Amino acid sequence: MSVRTPDPNPGWLSEFALDETRGRVPILYVEAVPVRLDPHGQVEHLGVLLRGSSTTGELTRTIVSGRVLHGESVRDALLRNLEKDLGPSAFPQLPPSLVPVTVAEYFPFPGVAPLVDPRQHAVALVYVVPVSGECVPRQDALELTWLTPSEALDPEVLDDFEGGRGLLVKQALAHLGALA
Amino acid sequence: MSVRTPDPNPGWLSEFALDETRGRVPILYVEAVPVRLDPHGQVEHLGVLLRGSSTTGELTRTIVSGRVLHGESVRDALLRNLEKDLGPSAFPQLPPSLVPVTVAEYFPFPGVAPLVDPRQHAVALVYVVPVSGECVPRQDALELTWLTPSEALDPEVLDDFEGGRGLLVKQALAHLGALA
Amino acid sequence: MSVRTPDPNPGWLSEFALDETRGRVPILYVEAVPVRLDPHGQVEHLGVLLRGSSTTGELTRTIVSGRVLHGESVRDALLRNLEKDLGPSAFPQLPPSLVPVTVAEYFPFPGVAPLVDPRQHAVALVYVVPVSGECVPRQDALELTWLTPSEALDPEVLDDFEGGRGLLVKQALAHLGALA
Amino acid sequence: MSVRTPDPNPGWLSEFALDETRGRVPILYVEAVPVRLDPHGQVEHLGVLLRGSSTTGELTRTIVSGRVLHGESVRDALLRNLEKDLGPSAFPQLPPSLVPVTVAEYFPFPGVAPLVDPRQHAVALVYVVPVSGECVPRQDALELTWLTPSEALDPEVLDDFEGGRGLLVKQALAHLGALA
Repeated sequence: MSVRTPDPNPGWLSEFALDETRGRVPILYVEAVPVRLDPHGQVEHLGVLLRGSSTTGELTRTIVSGRVLHGESVRDALLRNLEKDLGPSAFPQLPPSLVPVTVAEYFPFPGVAPLVDPRQHAVALVYVVPVSGECVPRQDALELTWLTPSEALDPEVLDDFEGGRGLLVKQALAHLGALA
Repeated sequence: MSVRTPDPNPGWLSEFALDETRGRVPILYVEAVPVRLDPHGQVEHLGVLLRGSSTTGELTRTIVSGRVLHGESVRDALLRNLEKDLGPSAFPQLPPSLVPVTVAEYFPFPGVAPLVDPRQHAVALVYVVPVSGECVPRQDALELTWLTPSEALDPEVLDDFEGGRGLLVKQALAHLGALA
Repeated sequence: MSVRTPDPNPGWLSEFALDETRGRVPILYVEAVPVRLDPHGQVEHLGVLLRGSSTTGELTRTIVSGRVLHGESVRDALLRNLEKDLGPSAFPQLPPSLVPVTVAEYFPFPGVAPLVDPRQHAVALVYVVPVSGECVPRQDALELTWLTPSEALDPEVLDDFEGGRGLLVKQALAHLGALA
Repeated sequence: MSVRTPDPNPGWLSEFALDETRGRVPILYVEAVPVRLDPHGQVEHLGVLLRGSSTTGELTRTIVSGRVLHGESVRDALLRNLEKDLGPSAFPQLPPSLVPVTVAEYFPFPGVAPLVDPRQHAVALVYVVPVSGECVPRQDALELTWLTPSEALDPEVLDDFEGGRGLLVKQALAHLGALA
């Protein structure tokens, strides 16, 4: 079901309006850890995005992430952001329930909470999403890599995640029974 | 842990700024179904708020509900709204995990989705919160009533809930194993 | 991963040993509500098994259900029972997490709890399992029917479920956000 | 609600009958991580049991754990085992929902799965249980210690847990958002 409706205030916002809004209310995000499952439903690999900073050249890791737009359902936002980050040939299987694996709270100032987003106060619904097909990121992200749970749990790898999102990877793997 | 930080853009917004913001992004809410538990942890009663409309005089039912303010953590928002609706002598026991019972999506136009909020596109994290102590609503709400699960599941009662929230009551009771 | 190990006491038990065991400990089951999802992950249909009683000729409804055998993992038991009830051409996608939608407790005496199993005290881990492919039951069950959520929620349909399992169908649909 | 019923085969089993049963079916357990919460519902301390081996004198750590008896409800089993391990002056608040934090599978042979129980194939429903009052173990366990999340996550501490249960502690803390 699509719940997008004719909208006099479209989801798209000017940079100015978005900046202003970010100072007024927490911004709602959806985030997804893409996974490859074996036939028993156990996670084999996690999809991790490698993003290069245009200014510092530094490489950081992240997961699929994006805003829920005005008038957009959570499921539509998930699908749109999965397609943005994994490309049109990826086939994500959205979870049958909207109950997230965890709720992630990002604050703009470091030290307040484990997750940080310098742009804004954001709250993300975090999902684990099984994906089949070919994944070819078509935006910012330079590369998608598939890591085994134990590769992803390497402390050096976890530290490379933007904004402290290594924590979300650990929470997702705990939820999947794949910490050990 | 409080994660409130010095904030140049306080959570409080002028009516104008809030209206403008409501046209730009989905607004994040927390909602809570207050419950009384027996010693085995099984729900005995649900707290339901009766609110009188100042214009029509009509009585409607609702659950604890309120915005997450800019810079405010989800837990702070839950506690603040529970105190607003249940009064200072209520002792809510916030759930140890922030994973909600359900994620509720409200759209401004009826017929698009089961939940409706004419003011805005809102997304609510819905929790079940055990409460002890005395509950005395101190705002809008006229009265707090405690219903057994079977009283709350009466179709006439469910229909009285604002915005279709009777659905959330059913989802909460299903989660608690108290549908039958 | 299969965790079946060489087992001096195989999962298979003689009728006598099983009866004796049923009088000693609660028996662990897995149960599954098969679902067809749309591309957004929302449930379109539930798979319901129609079983004819060999003695009374009465038709009853049920969901996929079976014991976890000695030495068998929960995932292996789920796959085995899904194949038993849906046939070898069904492709169930086991959930990535073993956290069940609900824990169902069956007691042998009616009136004690909403779920009843005259044979035994049983505890079932209940999952929602997306299924693709063709489903052709190959055992007891006469027929598999696919019902929409609103068809499944018809009180007459719910009453036809064996042992009170209509309650589990309601709980599963509540979890999926498909009660309305 | 207690669902204990007059039972010709009482929950108590002779050692012989229990050994025989352990070779026939997986044995159902409940396990609980006792926690102290702050007023915001965030975990401050975890209760960990220190048990001394009567044969080797070695100290091991564990969590609250025990069988579900024949005819006993999951909630009754949780309360009984919490009282056994925390004493009669502890006031556990059972969770309002029976959905566990994780399902733990123990196999008798090491190397098959992360959790091991040399006595049997066991499946445990694992809960986080807020506890107030005084906790004084009255059985096997020598001592109850309260650890902060970061103390509990020390790899040396996690390694001391019986049967690999350090994994369950990590999963519980991930669920509580207290891994960092």
